[in-house]
Amino acid sequence: MMLGVALLAAGQGKRMRSAWPKVLHRLAGRPLLAHAFEAASSLQPERICIVYGHGGDLVRSQMSELDCVWVEQAEQLGTGHAVRQAMIRLADLDRVLVLYGDVPLIEPETLARLVALAEDTSLALLTVRLADPTGYGRIVRDRQGRVQRIVEHGDASAEEQAIDEVNTGILIADRARLNDWLGRIGTANAQREYYLTDVIGLAVEDGVAVATTAPARHEEVAGVNDRIQLAQLERLYQRRLAEDLMRDGVALADPARLDIRGRLLAERDSFIDVNVVVEGEVRLGEGARIGPNCLLRDSVIGAGSEILANSVLEGARIGVGARVGPFARLRPGTELGDASRVGNFVEIKKSAIGSGSKVNHLSYIGDARIGSDVNIGAGTITCNYDGAAKHETRIGDGAFIGSNSALVAPVEVGPGATIGAGSVITRDAPPECLTLARGRQVTLDNWVRPRKPSKKP
Amino acid sequence: MMLGVALLAAGQGKRMRSAWPKVLHRLAGRPLLAHAFEAASSLQPERICIVYGHGGDLVRSQMSELDCVWVEQAEQLGTGHAVRQAMIRLADLDRVLVLYGDVPLIEPETLARLVALAEDTSLALLTVRLADPTGYGRIVRDRQGRVQRIVEHGDASAEEQAIDEVNTGILIADRARLNDWLGRIGTANAQREYYLTDVIGLAVEDGVAVATTAPARHEEVAGVNDRIQLAQLERLYQRRLAEDLMRDGVALADPARLDIRGRLLAERDSFIDVNVVVEGEVRLGEGARIGPNCLLRDSVIGAGSEILANSVLEGARIGVGARVGPFARLRPGTELGDASRVGNFVEIKKSAIGSGSKVNHLSYIGDARIGSDVNIGAGTITCNYDGAAKHETRIGDGAFIGSNSALVAPVEVGPGATIGAGSVITRDAPPECLTLARGRQVTLDNWVRPRKPSKKP
Amino acid sequence: MMLGVALLAAGQGKRMRSAWPKVLHRLAGRPLLAHAFEAASSLQPERICIVYGHGGDLVRSQMSELDCVWVEQAEQLGTGHAVRQAMIRLADLDRVLVLYGDVPLIEPETLARLVALAEDTSLALLTVRLADPTGYGRIVRDRQGRVQRIVEHGDASAEEQAIDEVNTGILIADRARLNDWLGRIGTANAQREYYLTDVIGLAVEDGVAVATTAPARHEEVAGVNDRIQLAQLERLYQRRLAEDLMRDGVALADPARLDIRGRLLAERDSFIDVNVVVEGEVRLGEGARIGPNCLLRDSVIGAGSEILANSVLEGARIGVGARVGPFARLRPGTELGDASRVGNFVEIKKSAIGSGSKVNHLSYIGDARIGSDVNIGAGTITCNYDGAAKHETRIGDGAFIGSNSALVAPVEVGPGATIGAGSVITRDAPPECLTLARGRQVTLDNWVRPRKPSKKP
Repeated sequence: MMLGVALLAAGQGKRMRSAWPKVLHRLAGRPLLAHAFEAASSLQPERICIVYGHGGDLVRSQMSELDCVWVEQAEQLGTGHAVRQAMIRLADLDRVLVLYGDVPLIEPETLARLVALAEDTSLALLTVRLADPTGYGRIVRDRQGRVQRIVEHGDASAEEQAIDEVNTGILIADRARLNDWLGRIGTANAQREYYLTDVIGLAVEDGVAVATTAPARHEEVAGVNDRIQLAQLERLYQRRLAEDLMRDGVALADPARLDIRGRLLAERDSFIDVNVVVEGEVRLGEGARIGPNCLLRDSVIGAGSEILANSVLEGARIGVGARVGPFARLRPGTELGDASRVGNFVEIKKSAIGSGSKVNHLSYIGDARIGSDVNIGAGTITCNYDGAAKHETRIGDGAFIGSNSALVAPVEVGPGATIGAGSVITRDAPPECLTLARGRQVTLDNWVRPRKPSKKP
Repeated sequence: MMLGVALLAAGQGKRMRSAWPKVLHRLAGRPLLAHAFEAASSLQPERICIVYGHGGDLVRSQMSELDCVWVEQAEQLGTGHAVRQAMIRLADLDRVLVLYGDVPLIEPETLARLVALAEDTSLALLTVRLADPTGYGRIVRDRQGRVQRIVEHGDASAEEQAIDEVNTGILIADRARLNDWLGRIGTANAQREYYLTDVIGLAVEDGVAVATTAPARHEEVAGVNDRIQLAQLERLYQRRLAEDLMRDGVALADPARLDIRGRLLAERDSFIDVNVVVEGEVRLGEGARIGPNCLLRDSVIGAGSEILANSVLEGARIGVGARVGPFARLRPGTELGDASRVGNFVEIKKSAIGSGSKVNHLSYIGDARIGSDVNIGAGTITCNYDGAAKHETRIGDGAFIGSNSALVAPVEVGPGATIGAGSVITRDAPPECLTLARGRQVTLDNWVRPRKPSKKP
Repeated sequence: MMLGVALLAAGQGKRMRSAWPKVLHRLAGRPLLAHAFEAASSLQPERICIVYGHGGDLVRSQMSELDCVWVEQAEQLGTGHAVRQAMIRLADLDRVLVLYGDVPLIEPETLARLVALAEDTSLALLTVRLADPTGYGRIVRDRQGRVQRIVEHGDASAEEQAIDEVNTGILIADRARLNDWLGRIGTANAQREYYLTDVIGLAVEDGVAVATTAPARHEEVAGVNDRIQLAQLERLYQRRLAEDLMRDGVALADPARLDIRGRLLAERDSFIDVNVVVEGEVRLGEGARIGPNCLLRDSVIGAGSEILANSVLEGARIGVGARVGPFARLRPGTELGDASRVGNFVEIKKSAIGSGSKVNHLSYIGDARIGSDVNIGAGTITCNYDGAAKHETRIGDGAFIGSNSALVAPVEVGPGATIGAGSVITRDAPPECLTLARGRQVTLDNWVRPRKPSKKP
């Protein structure tokens, strides 16, 4: 069967109190719409048609990478009206699945189950049982359990209010019949809107047996109407990711204090301490250890390597058995060799550090190629910027850079060279020699240090 | 009506296990007593009389800014006795409201409702229904629902123990009648103390119809007896603040991991990542973003500005579109211009940085006036202290300070000037020129670096 | 009575998805087996016999400090078989208590109660009532409440499934009778294994009155089968530690965000802010304050001292009234005097800092002896390593080290000496004098700073 998806994303989301349309708000670092789109894509439909409205230009520009058809719902006349806008662009297909841009956690498995039901009937509906169904449209069934209609909370009798099975709004229907039903729904309701829900009653009238299935978890069908709900779904989502990691053999100090905004691929026996944030794509080798309060973005950390507390990594590739931090800041283009060491208050940017080399304290290394077994002393600065362009520093294997040195790039320090502490190196330093540049030490006997005035004379 | 408040704050709080009297323990950064006082003040009473006892000098000195009358309860003879101490100082008023210094979360709306009841009767009482009323005094009512008496848990029959409505101790009464009742209560009980509770029975005896109302939430009337309870109230309070922020359009990564000790005024679409602590008064402009693990105190952050992970700000004012951190430390008197940048391992204190200027790496900037579009190289230090006094560094627009430079204040670097890397600048550097101060680079060919002794000869 | 313990630690723990045997996984920083062993040790038994199997070499090498007898269970033939391996090494004792290496939270009080029961009978069993007993062996009792047998969940009738009292597997028995029962159990079950549980039925057959007792909390008997369960027990354990601290008078900003892996000995009125991790043995004096996001390991912090946000301490001893951080990193061998100050981006290692001395900004102090009332300027580096050995820097009382100085060790700065900013000090600096070593400042008028090419000509 040829499947199309109508993905409704036109809502403003007034209760978000935001300049941004609702579907662009982020869950786990990605817009709500991207989550719903990904779930829809998992079904490999012929086409996904996104109905946009409020803040439409923003939605289209922010989500321009999506492979979809965009349809504008110029007026907000209800969900039935929104789906109708999409139908025009889905007219060549057999079935239409209706999804929502503000329902981000729906699972592919659940959708696949729903789609499978549509093989045998013209309308299948996702329903869910809630401990507290207040406010939701109840699923009224006859004695044989066949869906009869959906009654909105406000219209429900006491008996109907006791029903705990509710409508999720997610449904799949035969395209042609859906088109027909959508043409027949009216606006005779409090909001004067076209409700997609009314399709159910029309289908039953037409003798269609409405099939239903339910999601594995409630949160799959939870919509986001305000930031409190969004924060709740964020936590549920993060909890799920954390449990998946633990099931795969990753040790977490506290699953409630890990945030993954992107993808974390972690080998078994890797360990993540409390309060770590992961963004983009991050890989951890077997037995890698991440200390508390670290932020990792788009980085690869080799087996057995350790990132100590309070470090920030971005775009870094770290070999095997390395140690980084605490208080290290690795920026994009950092490559650390096996068994290398980067210590506290060190920033590295667009530089390769060879295996076994050490940059242990208070240094800035930018645009550098550093060989293996090099020791970079505390307070070393590569002066890579001349106000207009960046220049490279090269340091050969086994070199020793004395503390508090400034290496003015472009400059090269030869293999085995030693740079005296406190030097400003502006020309290449030859291999195996000591090079230094510093002032002569003098003592002034007659100088008197300023003193604070005594408080009492 | 002329309202007085008797605020009881004499308890020691033995279970706090502390050298401090209980009411000085802090919730959201402020003493418990300050919370209760603020709630009392919201009613704009004629007078608030605080009854102190244990650690009274500490309480008075720590809370000296409160606009109130202090009365000592020299002996701890019960709540009834405590209120009596206050009555002397409230003798000219119509009504007396009794509040507690260790019940910090009581809401102004609740108190206003209680006070309103006192318009029509001589005694109104705040009661609450608890899922588990064990240990509390139960409100016994007659068939018409009129309050008859309060029965302590220990004295309650099985039937009375099933009552879930309990006394909160918070009440308002006609001043003259309360005085009379207080004079009539005795100490015929296990503790040999004067119980304020006994006033209820006396009022009923006198034919007074005791009015009641309830708080919106249980925690409003929760008292603090130990640190576990205090920690629970802290979390409830923080949760409430977080939800208020979200309702106002602020995005929170995790409402359970935000601590506000003071006041956060955040515009819509500002974002606060996990584990942020806010102290004092902090303002965030629209779309401002605060990274994880930041501490913000008494600071203003302009619209669209971003504070990256693990930064600490105190007394800083930041313009629009600036970027700070990660690992930045801004101290009081820091003013950052629009679109300025402060990077990692940078400390700034009592300095103004112009718009578009950058201090990106490992620098200490103190007592400096820095113009716009200035580039401060990595490892730059303003030497602002001579052992006795602080001196100022001035840097003109468009200047470029080479890395690892020391600027010995008082000193001025002219507009457009360049300072060579590694220089110690002790005299003013003229505009548009290159100024440097460094040693000559030499190489010693015959020098041999010390080697670690080989482990095997 | 002569007590022996059979501690079963042979399980692989497949669901941990780990290269490590299950009992070596860590809770609060220590292997599960260490927790169980400590509980067993609290009974002061004659001997503890650990039955190991999977990953046995690793277990023995990692836990080599345990005072116990090791017995291998070469084949995994069930719990009954495992206990039999231990019996050989406990043959001289009166009673045998069976514990599990993957049940870490069992309390000494609970075990003591169980052991006491064994004074009067040949078999005592620890049982627990669970809200959801699904999957557990139910305790079937007769009308007099006497234990009759244990029925496994799969074999239980509907009536038996309703029983909420379940077997924990923890039992104590007369050694000789246990030996006899173990010899009589068979493998006629689904797994074809020897089940220790079968001992109960045999005891009842033999007319033994099986005594039972229960733990104070469910988690005491919770086993670890996967990492999700381990994370849950970690949180329960941490919660318990946090509550103990609060009961002892320690203020915690959020008990759910404190991790103690080792021992924290904190005096009353000390305060720990959110997200602190404690490892090894840490002591806090009265009124000491720890800021958010700090990591403390094996350190002592004096009364009234304050560790500000985002600091990492390891092996440090800090006096009274000192202030450290934010962003301080103290490494092993750091000793800070009373009222000393260590500020941001400062690393200290194996150094003593005298009372009242200050190292406030961006410095590395290693292998130094620093007197009292010394001021170390921003960006100071002790150059303690020459590529082969570490050397010492000595700084006398009242000295003043100008900013951005490098002190090339071995070197001594005399009392009251001043070092000029930006100096590289390679020889001793005499007391009370100004010593400096820096280049002469020159200005080049005709030099032109490189400019970025304009984008439009």
